[in-house]
Amino acid sequence: MNKVKIGLMGLGNIGRGVWKIFEFNKLDIEKSTGYSFEISKVLVKDLKKQRELDIPVHLLTTDPLDILNDKDIEIVVELIGGIEPAKDYILKAIRNKKHVVTANKAVIASHGNELIEAAIQEKVYLQFEGSVAGGIPILDSIKDSLTANKIDEIMGIVNGTTNYILSKMTNESTDFFSALKEAQGKGYAEADPTSDVEGYDASYKLSILSSLAFGTQLPVSAIYREGITKITPIDIEYARELGYVIKLLAIGKQKKDCVELRVHPTLIPVSHPLATIQDAFNGIFIRGNAVGDLMYYGKGAGDLPTGSAVVGNIISIIKKKQCSYIPDFKVNNAIEIQSMDSTICEYYVRIMVKDIPGVLGRIATEFGKGNVSLSSVIQKGEGEPQVSLVFVTHLTNELNVQNSLMEILKINEVIEIANVIRVEK
Amino acid sequence: MNKVKIGLMGLGNIGRGVWKIFEFNKLDIEKSTGYSFEISKVLVKDLKKQRELDIPVHLLTTDPLDILNDKDIEIVVELIGGIEPAKDYILKAIRNKKHVVTANKAVIASHGNELIEAAIQEKVYLQFEGSVAGGIPILDSIKDSLTANKIDEIMGIVNGTTNYILSKMTNESTDFFSALKEAQGKGYAEADPTSDVEGYDASYKLSILSSLAFGTQLPVSAIYREGITKITPIDIEYARELGYVIKLLAIGKQKKDCVELRVHPTLIPVSHPLATIQDAFNGIFIRGNAVGDLMYYGKGAGDLPTGSAVVGNIISIIKKKQCSYIPDFKVNNAIEIQSMDSTICEYYVRIMVKDIPGVLGRIATEFGKGNVSLSSVIQKGEGEPQVSLVFVTHLTNELNVQNSLMEILKINEVIEIANVIRVEK
Repeated sequence: MNKVKIGLMGLGNIGRGVWKIFEFNKLDIEKSTGYSFEISKVLVKDLKKQRELDIPVHLLTTDPLDILNDKDIEIVVELIGGIEPAKDYILKAIRNKKHVVTANKAVIASHGNELIEAAIQEKVYLQFEGSVAGGIPILDSIKDSLTANKIDEIMGIVNGTTNYILSKMTNESTDFFSALKEAQGKGYAEADPTSDVEGYDASYKLSILSSLAFGTQLPVSAIYREGITKITPIDIEYARELGYVIKLLAIGKQKKDCVELRVHPTLIPVSHPLATIQDAFNGIFIRGNAVGDLMYYGKGAGDLPTGSAVVGNIISIIKKKQCSYIPDFKVNNAIEIQSMDSTICEYYVRIMVKDIPGVLGRIATEFGKGNVSLSSVIQKGEGEPQVSLVFVTHLTNELNVQNSLMEILKINEVIEIANVIRVEK
Repeated sequence: MNKVKIGLMGLGNIGRGVWKIFEFNKLDIEKSTGYSFEISKVLVKDLKKQRELDIPVHLLTTDPLDILNDKDIEIVVELIGGIEPAKDYILKAIRNKKHVVTANKAVIASHGNELIEAAIQEKVYLQFEGSVAGGIPILDSIKDSLTANKIDEIMGIVNGTTNYILSKMTNESTDFFSALKEAQGKGYAEADPTSDVEGYDASYKLSILSSLAFGTQLPVSAIYREGITKITPIDIEYARELGYVIKLLAIGKQKKDCVELRVHPTLIPVSHPLATIQDAFNGIFIRGNAVGDLMYYGKGAGDLPTGSAVVGNIISIIKKKQCSYIPDFKVNNAIEIQSMDSTICEYYVRIMVKDIPGVLGRIATEFGKGNVSLSSVIQKGEGEPQVSLVFVTHLTNELNVQNSLMEILKINEVIEIANVIRVEK
């Protein structure tokens, strides 16, 4: 049986998952591929650290060059995360004619094109299924199975932490901070939760997903991004009353001459497939012009799920390397990203007002002047000094909404624009 | 640009979908593959039939040999359905060194092994993603993306007709025959609905799915099969009360030394991802030992969704044929299929009885004697001459349940065993 030697860089959660999968499923993988896989070196930070896994000490190294310069290693698996030195290691591996598998969303979202170009030059493969939605094989699907389609739209719940928090807030009516604390207690959120709750993590993943789906490299910096910290139990309750749930969505849409990319909390109808994705699970909804609506659901993180994607990539490279080289990805020209002002959407707007007769009419009039047409209005808490007015608009332009809200803020009885949340159907 | 000539056998619903996709997405497909695809011959039954599509008349033929013996045709797409002459055409195409794509579940479920062996002998590819769940790329996923996993379990809603009927019955409390009639009116069910409502269609698909997932050929004839004609609104209502919905599931489980295969109506918890699959949509739930729980949701039928799978297969073959030949599938040894008697399941049992004090006790005693342990009991309609008693068991053995029911039928006050439905979680 042919042997393939693998160099594993990083022995964190996912690294250990990869090790375990090759251990548990060794025989099945050998039987189905005809290859025997051996992790021959493992890059760690500390040789002396106590580890739960029984990895022979002589495999461990703290010197990346022990892997990058090892002529016997065919595949380098980069799982240290972050941009540097990960990017440097990946590039060196590629320049040394090694195939690379990574689950590193930051480096792929930020430098994917450069790394893919290098891989094509050196005729090696660079795969990164684990960088988006853990074990869900969404990149493979876009790249291989859905090639008959023009992808019109992707909407994903791609961050488990925020979905856990929003699920808690929805099902138990807790506020954001209590739900965050619980997520931290369960290990779903980090001590500094910024990357998750402010939508950075989701925007990395959207960059990767939509770059693949729309055949171009879409920079993270160009993605409109809004986190979930402003969502309150009050908004969740109004949403429910209107027939919606609130999810943090990563949205990519192919428009005529541009693409629309945004990450923000979103009202989606309770009947939408994504509305059923609970807790730390991920779900990716994709619409192709042939296949119609598809949704994938699964674990978006974790040692074994993400390890499943990494090992799947390793096996796929081993199959491909028997062929003459065909690039996995194409680096195409840039497509323009639509400015957020031009986005067409429905909007949920909650405004705090003094409860004085006529204020609803004044606000509605301003919306009308701004060309924002309303589909529903809820007014509650009659007789209290401050009340919430909730408006849902018909499809309208972001700029019109923002301009109308500026005018509405000038109305005397208006205390604040409490929240503005986009609606998708 | 390299040209690939395709022979299309059959111009029904899916055949027209394939034609349309190559028409609509021509430029995108050429750009992403570097190949130009041409459907150069189309096998039809009647040359003179009026067609909605604008297909040049000189492409049409009624003679299959015009395609099978055409040296320029590299890929034959078989979409005539049924076993013969489809099987004969596929074999001839393979023997003439042509790659074959089909969406024909009957021929693959019944003769997959033989056809795959022939393809391996001739070093051509045979692909059939469209044969299961339309456009959902579930076979590709099992075959390519999830190779790091041992698949433990598959549960699928793979028949849109029955899911439409059960959704109607659940959401509108109609009975089976009214729902069937509506499905027929909408074109979701055929005039003779036997194949769908009796579970034959689902068992073909289960055979294909589980053959791939468990690495063997599992004959349709060995699959336990039960349709949905006995499901009543009463059962659906009791299920709801107990926290379940009723779906027709195709279930495949890997056991220690065998596999468990069955198609039958099933109670699943409302919180199960499959419970949310409504109307004619398909959903496939799969559990791998690394990736954990995954679910795919999408359109299980239709010209463009199934066409998406067929064209995806065509493109994948074109990529593969540039390499030295590696078989797509392996034909492995047989795995034993567990006898239905040995199945371990929970059961929902509804029994009609005369409402006489003590009957519940007598029935419960018989279950106990038969080693069937109960988890809940519902008794309703007190005072009426006939009442329903509903029992849900703990995990138990099929044979024990069947034996207990034989004894229960002997109890004087028992009128009939109205329904027995398995429960999955």
